[in-house]
Amino acid sequence: MRDVAVIGIGCTPFGEHWGASFRNLFIQAGALALEDAGLSGEQIDALYVGNMSAGRFIEQEHIGALIADYSGMATRHIPATRVEAACASGGLSFRQAVIAVASGMEDVVVAAGVEKMTDVGTGTSVDTLAGAADREWEGLVGATFPGLYAMIATDYMHRYPLTREQLAMVAVKNHFNGARNPIAQFRQEITVETVLRSPLVADPLRLFDCSPITDGAAAVVVAPLDRAREFTDRFVKVRASAQASDTISLHDRADISRLDATVAAGRWALSDAGLSHRDIDLVEVHDCFTIAEICAIEDLGFCRKGEAGRLTEEGVTALDGDLPVNTSGGLKACGHPVGATGIKQICEVVQQLRGEAGKRQVPGAEIGMTHNVGGTGATVAVHILEVV
Amino acid sequence: MRDVAVIGIGCTPFGEHWGASFRNLFIQAGALALEDAGLSGEQIDALYVGNMSAGRFIEQEHIGALIADYSGMATRHIPATRVEAACASGGLSFRQAVIAVASGMEDVVVAAGVEKMTDVGTGTSVDTLAGAADREWEGLVGATFPGLYAMIATDYMHRYPLTREQLAMVAVKNHFNGARNPIAQFRQEITVETVLRSPLVADPLRLFDCSPITDGAAAVVVAPLDRAREFTDRFVKVRASAQASDTISLHDRADISRLDATVAAGRWALSDAGLSHRDIDLVEVHDCFTIAEICAIEDLGFCRKGEAGRLTEEGVTALDGDLPVNTSGGLKACGHPVGATGIKQICEVVQQLRGEAGKRQVPGAEIGMTHNVGGTGATVAVHILEVV
Repeated sequence: MRDVAVIGIGCTPFGEHWGASFRNLFIQAGALALEDAGLSGEQIDALYVGNMSAGRFIEQEHIGALIADYSGMATRHIPATRVEAACASGGLSFRQAVIAVASGMEDVVVAAGVEKMTDVGTGTSVDTLAGAADREWEGLVGATFPGLYAMIATDYMHRYPLTREQLAMVAVKNHFNGARNPIAQFRQEITVETVLRSPLVADPLRLFDCSPITDGAAAVVVAPLDRAREFTDRFVKVRASAQASDTISLHDRADISRLDATVAAGRWALSDAGLSHRDIDLVEVHDCFTIAEICAIEDLGFCRKGEAGRLTEEGVTALDGDLPVNTSGGLKACGHPVGATGIKQICEVVQQLRGEAGKRQVPGAEIGMTHNVGGTGATVAVHILEVV
Repeated sequence: MRDVAVIGIGCTPFGEHWGASFRNLFIQAGALALEDAGLSGEQIDALYVGNMSAGRFIEQEHIGALIADYSGMATRHIPATRVEAACASGGLSFRQAVIAVASGMEDVVVAAGVEKMTDVGTGTSVDTLAGAADREWEGLVGATFPGLYAMIATDYMHRYPLTREQLAMVAVKNHFNGARNPIAQFRQEITVETVLRSPLVADPLRLFDCSPITDGAAAVVVAPLDRAREFTDRFVKVRASAQASDTISLHDRADISRLDATVAAGRWALSDAGLSHRDIDLVEVHDCFTIAEICAIEDLGFCRKGEAGRLTEEGVTALDGDLPVNTSGGLKACGHPVGATGIKQICEVVQQLRGEAGKRQVPGAEIGMTHNVGGTGATVAVHILEVV
């Protein structure tokens, strides 16, 4: 298998785009990524796109072809494939592009992610998003994602030393970072009080514990590492790509406070890369809810179970801490257009490794990790990127 | 890249399964494929599944993880990925599995396809299926798939010598073959009169020109060719895998009677395989409507434009003809559970190449082709399989 590099990145602003359609959004992101790589559309060999639920949000399937068409690439008939794994659709899109290049099947491949969640025609976002859980055993009895993660939080706080204030500090940190990210949906700093005084959504989770409903798209271009310099000198190597599954229902797990797919994918990625946790300079984790960031830091193995709350309070995961987590602002402050999030995480780490993250730059960052979760952890993708 | 082999196949009966759910169906197909390969679930390294629209049909996304879970494979946390390209979802699932094995990333991979279209909760099948076309420029103005293919048929019959009777003969042939296929939804033979007297759906297409609404699932197991003999002596080599895209809207094409993605994918597959049309012993084409089979035979290059009607009438494409087309009964008689169809085509060709197709066996078949279309041709997957 060939080594693979990311040679271009592009991301729309995340937010409520009442003036931009699904297809507008991905064209913006794709154009930005091609421009960043110094490529024209004619140089792209294949396209992968992550999208969770355009079928329900905008009654449109066949997303790969739609994107190839509206970005002008269908005239050359390039392969265009949608992959879906709920909120991990973006991470899996990136992974499929990496596999296609690593195999030698394709050379220059775009991996994109997109979701249009506001200004949509049918149903509620909450019900559509519940399609990421088990419809028969969770959705039909009324479980929503805030409800499912609230169960995780309740179980976790019963068993481990995590205070309500520490949980709030995850959101405070991510808003601090998001305030320094031009593409973030929420660019204001908040306090622990902001979180604790926000409306209760699903006990113990409050509004400011939850990632929002968001429109957005992100795209990256990957190519063989040994050809990357033909295109750019700002490329980043894909050091590892790992993907794991778990039961789709929370109630089928031995321990609902531990996401075993995160444990597995994290271990596989570090093992494939031949790296230890100490080598990782920053990590983008899937903080769809504040409790999810707490679990992710622990399940990825950066600390023991029960310690992430204290580390957050001590500032270890802050921008200037030993292990900056979610320098982009995470899903909480950037927003969470579900299909796009996994690709946005790649964009953030690439920006950091290229030293282009501006006010949220982690000085000297050389190796970064992304962690993208589908549902309550039935799919997890972990990638490690490295400056070479 | 490594050569890849199909080492096991499994397919549920296609039809109206009022007693079987989405998850029941894919478990049946997966179990059959594993049994056929002599494998246990513990030997599977990864899973790809093609599905068009479970989000709209049964309000369930996150299909890869759901299948990994319900087939017991999530306990080992194997990667499980859904791919979607409307009615070509199955073909793309197979192709992704082939790429994963060819790359060396995985060894033993299941490629599956599934769709549950009857006994579903919301919306109409016609509207859900219209999600394979351009919702903004086709669906919203009322275009349905029978309507879109009727436009193709009207244009085609205006320009080329195809009689209404010849078009009906496509359905007659496919019902003849389907009557010999234990998994087919429609196992009765019909006559040209049956077609011509059936209700008009979208002029000139009548009910018996259209593939039906169907529940079903199919699965195959792929592995490196050089390891295939460890598992079975009835393996079949994947000689070529090609995928092409085109405009999603019919009105954006220079010629609506020619599916350029079929032309491209067909050429690429033959070229990659180093084969000519004369080497192909049988082909499964995507006859979602009778006119689609006529176009496919020509666009794949088996004859010139305008000749396929005559060839059908002369019996060239019949079971005992020079180029048997849709020995399975095709989408017309087998039924068309959209996500499963592309995998069912692989199952049929493998059965033929293994000499296990019973009453519809093509004697001495050594090389077969499959042709799977999404929408009106915005995605096409072509595969060539070979006895070794």
